[in-house]
Amino acid sequence: MDEDVPRKRGPYARSAERRRAIVDAALEVFAAKGYLAGSLQDIADRIGVSQTSLLHYFPRKRDLLLAVLDQRDAVDKPPAGLSFPDDVLAQADLNARHHGLPELYTVLCGESVTEGHPAREHFARRFASLRDQYADELRGLAEEGRLRPGIEPSIAATGLIAIRDGLQTQWLLDPDVDVTAGLRAYLALILVDAPESEASVTPR
Amino acid sequence: MDEDVPRKRGPYARSAERRRAIVDAALEVFAAKGYLAGSLQDIADRIGVSQTSLLHYFPRKRDLLLAVLDQRDAVDKPPAGLSFPDDVLAQADLNARHHGLPELYTVLCGESVTEGHPAREHFARRFASLRDQYADELRGLAEEGRLRPGIEPSIAATGLIAIRDGLQTQWLLDPDVDVTAGLRAYLALILVDAPESEASVTPR
Repeated sequence: MDEDVPRKRGPYARSAERRRAIVDAALEVFAAKGYLAGSLQDIADRIGVSQTSLLHYFPRKRDLLLAVLDQRDAVDKPPAGLSFPDDVLAQADLNARHHGLPELYTVLCGESVTEGHPAREHFARRFASLRDQYADELRGLAEEGRLRPGIEPSIAATGLIAIRDGLQTQWLLDPDVDVTAGLRAYLALILVDAPESEASVTPR
Repeated sequence: MDEDVPRKRGPYARSAERRRAIVDAALEVFAAKGYLAGSLQDIADRIGVSQTSLLHYFPRKRDLLLAVLDQRDAVDKPPAGLSFPDDVLAQADLNARHHGLPELYTVLCGESVTEGHPAREHFARRFASLRDQYADELRGLAEEGRLRPGIEPSIAATGLIAIRDGLQTQWLLDPDVDVTAGLRAYLALILVDAPESEASVTPR
């Protein structure tokens, strides 16, 4: 068999591809309308499949939501080896460049506080885990003497996550709001040696 | 005519009362499901009127949304005469006590970033106006020497609004998150003489 002739892809590859196309379409629909108002029909229409076909892959709409959230969490990460403050800034930069992802995050996170929302648990766990992780990072910086005196790592960790989310929402409503400048300013308030220039993070 | 006998209320009073009941019901429905997924039928059902009757008062669903947002803006304000930092803390305290209002704010603000959302303009204008107002307040404090050196009033104003919103979202998903403690910590970072105790704000 000639190795240069592409082999026909088997049913597994086709199935994985279809699954991926459905999740991509769902991400766009949920980012544009939210989960509650974005319908399975909207998603099926976007890729020209039937609702029945879609339900074969995702029996319940909430399964699709969880797949979308997993995909969102799996997008580009900043390069390894950055310091914690640089990593936070680089992550914010990357997020801003994924058209649709900041919208998706903002609308789903907002919706998640409503009664019985299927993403509530996801966001509650995500925030709790981020708070722990950031507080650990800040405690590490405190041990190196890089946290300003009087800063409580767990309160500053919660604040850092809060200010990032709040800045992103304001930016989505007004592109003149500078998320990176806001984050830098916050880091400068809590750190002795906060990153000053853009050189250390992913270039625009 | 005996002044103690209550007069029959005229059609205007009944109409205003009905209107108010509709807005209250809409607020509850939008807080529980968001605007996009909360239906006029849900709202009509909640107060036992027909959709036709509801549409008599609010011809379009978006008119009802704007009435809900106006009502939200008109709720209790902190007492006059508080300093800016105390006012910010007192407002956060008051918000937290209005069951449903923080949820309403979070879900509608999140939804407002979606395509063509009727509350987009409301939130964009609200944020722009708050940023201006807070920056003015911080410039005033700077002139009195109460802002820490190196703090840029407009960036700190944007950050204060962002951290408040972000903390509120985290608190809605986990009641152990302390919005007031987070706001106090932020104010302590930017002000020379931030409020220390709870005594100065509305008591719990």
